[in-house]
Amino acid sequence: MRIAVDAMGGDHAPVEVVKGCVEASRLISHEICLVGDEPRIREELAKYEYNRNQVTVKHAPDVITFEEAPVRAIRTKKESSMVVGINMVKDGEAAIFISAGSSGAIMAGGLFILGRIPGIDRPAIAATIPMLKTGGVALIVDAGANPECKVENLMQFAVMGNLYCKSVFDMEAPRIGLVNMGTEAGKGSGTLKTTYEELTASSLNFVGNVEARDLQESVCDVILCDGMVGNVLLKNLEGTAKTIMSIIQAKFTENVRTKMGAALLLPQIRELKKMFDYSEYGGAPILGVKGALIKMHGSYKANGVKNTILKAIPYAENNVVASIEESVAAMSAAASKEEESSEQQ
Amino acid sequence: MRIAVDAMGGDHAPVEVVKGCVEASRLISHEICLVGDEPRIREELAKYEYNRNQVTVKHAPDVITFEEAPVRAIRTKKESSMVVGINMVKDGEAAIFISAGSSGAIMAGGLFILGRIPGIDRPAIAATIPMLKTGGVALIVDAGANPECKVENLMQFAVMGNLYCKSVFDMEAPRIGLVNMGTEAGKGSGTLKTTYEELTASSLNFVGNVEARDLQESVCDVILCDGMVGNVLLKNLEGTAKTIMSIIQAKFTENVRTKMGAALLLPQIRELKKMFDYSEYGGAPILGVKGALIKMHGSYKANGVKNTILKAIPYAENNVVASIEESVAAMSAAASKEEESSEQQ
Repeated sequence: MRIAVDAMGGDHAPVEVVKGCVEASRLISHEICLVGDEPRIREELAKYEYNRNQVTVKHAPDVITFEEAPVRAIRTKKESSMVVGINMVKDGEAAIFISAGSSGAIMAGGLFILGRIPGIDRPAIAATIPMLKTGGVALIVDAGANPECKVENLMQFAVMGNLYCKSVFDMEAPRIGLVNMGTEAGKGSGTLKTTYEELTASSLNFVGNVEARDLQESVCDVILCDGMVGNVLLKNLEGTAKTIMSIIQAKFTENVRTKMGAALLLPQIRELKKMFDYSEYGGAPILGVKGALIKMHGSYKANGVKNTILKAIPYAENNVVASIEESVAAMSAAASKEEESSEQQ
Repeated sequence: MRIAVDAMGGDHAPVEVVKGCVEASRLISHEICLVGDEPRIREELAKYEYNRNQVTVKHAPDVITFEEAPVRAIRTKKESSMVVGINMVKDGEAAIFISAGSSGAIMAGGLFILGRIPGIDRPAIAATIPMLKTGGVALIVDAGANPECKVENLMQFAVMGNLYCKSVFDMEAPRIGLVNMGTEAGKGSGTLKTTYEELTASSLNFVGNVEARDLQESVCDVILCDGMVGNVLLKNLEGTAKTIMSIIQAKFTENVRTKMGAALLLPQIRELKKMFDYSEYGGAPILGVKGALIKMHGSYKANGVKNTILKAIPYAENNVVASIEESVAAMSAAASKEEESSEQQ
């Protein structure tokens, strides 16, 4: 299997991306292909010992920046690392493409180069978040692709999130929770009320409405919401954890006594830090396009890149994209059969 | 000034509510009137030393529960502590009414008993959150009353939040931030885009889009968003802080060594706990109704009740409700004048 990685995307590209890829290559046997400006990538690669058959380079001289209008950039910059990488997935040259570049561009690239899976109206970004208490994880869908969603979008996100959790996290029957302002049925907007009813009627393991307050109590595995709410959840968690860690750091180094206390607690403080370190949890797949694409956090350093590659392997190997295609096709077939039979009555 | 408090609302009523009122009465000179079942309240009051002229009781034999449909409950339970208390505000018998009862009921009571301020289409819940790093606060509007909002609702929330921060937090020019998925203009839904433009054109101190990740960096004073997003923000912050504190507690008591470390850090850990304790920050006003109503967290104990009363005083004393009425009337007058002159052209 070949894993293509955008060497030019993100705040620390290509230095940290190349480093992360070399580190990942030492832990796996799959080929990692760095996509981007070849001379620049070779310059970075020269710093390390690596297997030349396993870490390869695909030249792409152009770069799409965060400032560019995504759709226009994808359409005009054919030689960019983003477009070349996504085309590798399209042409079967790579099983997956990973990028820390602009979310808008990877989304547009997915839509225009790979296309939507038939039956999926809007692709979604799925982000893995840590369940701090249990040590497990949960998946937020949508984490920011679609600020406004209809019932059918949310239902499709639920189906995709369910399959992702089954395949990648090895969960038997992922618990689907609908983010709402209260846990009672009948809460929230009309869209949420109808989605609640449809989820109840579906074969998914729907556990009802969930409140943002209880998410860390691991009340569900798929945190279902529109992209605005998902984005707020994800970023708020990240911001709050970061703030709390920086306050702890400041308070625990206040004086000699606190420094002694902190020294005794050092292994526990390190564990806490690791828990809150977002680069431990890998990137976010774009679910709903005809190919495996993963968006990494723009701020990821080598460790984040390495972890994203490692976590991407089951997604590509278990061919989650094909499972989604099959499930959605089966759903559409069942729906049209139902329609037909109700027309005949 | 008389402050009316719902003695029967919340998880720990009347025990903790009465205790909190007595504690608050020792710190202020205003009258606190406990509204609810008089014999039950007197029984609780008998446990304390208090000034009988300052802590009074208004009998209301009925209670509205969390399970009841809010509008129906407000319309039928005329003798409930909630309805009696809100009527005290309407009749000028109390400057403010505070309740830890059902949000839906207090909202419905505000709408049906007091009525909306002319020019405000939808009242909002405004929640104060701590800025952990700076020790300051920020105001989320709407924190959960309106899951879906139009541009005009958000604009009205901005005006009300601005006046609240000026009067209650003594801010000169509160910074209004619009919660969005990115900080650039042109992000998010159509509603958010138009709101961005209108805020830019307004006389408010609009600082642009803000991301959930940066809120703890004190990027704005009024966190403007629809009720769904506000509710998620508020509850996620609460849940994350609670989880992190419980993990710290568990990790720091793991063994003899960590317990020694924690003992050395005890004052710092206590400070952290206090920072994350939501009962330190008081209740949430219902902005946009013709009277001062404050909703407390259902789980508040005496300390939360006491703090809510203390923080409610500037809201009532500075007559923020009247300021909102005046501002909105002036805005409407200006808008209709503009319309008139454009018609004449």
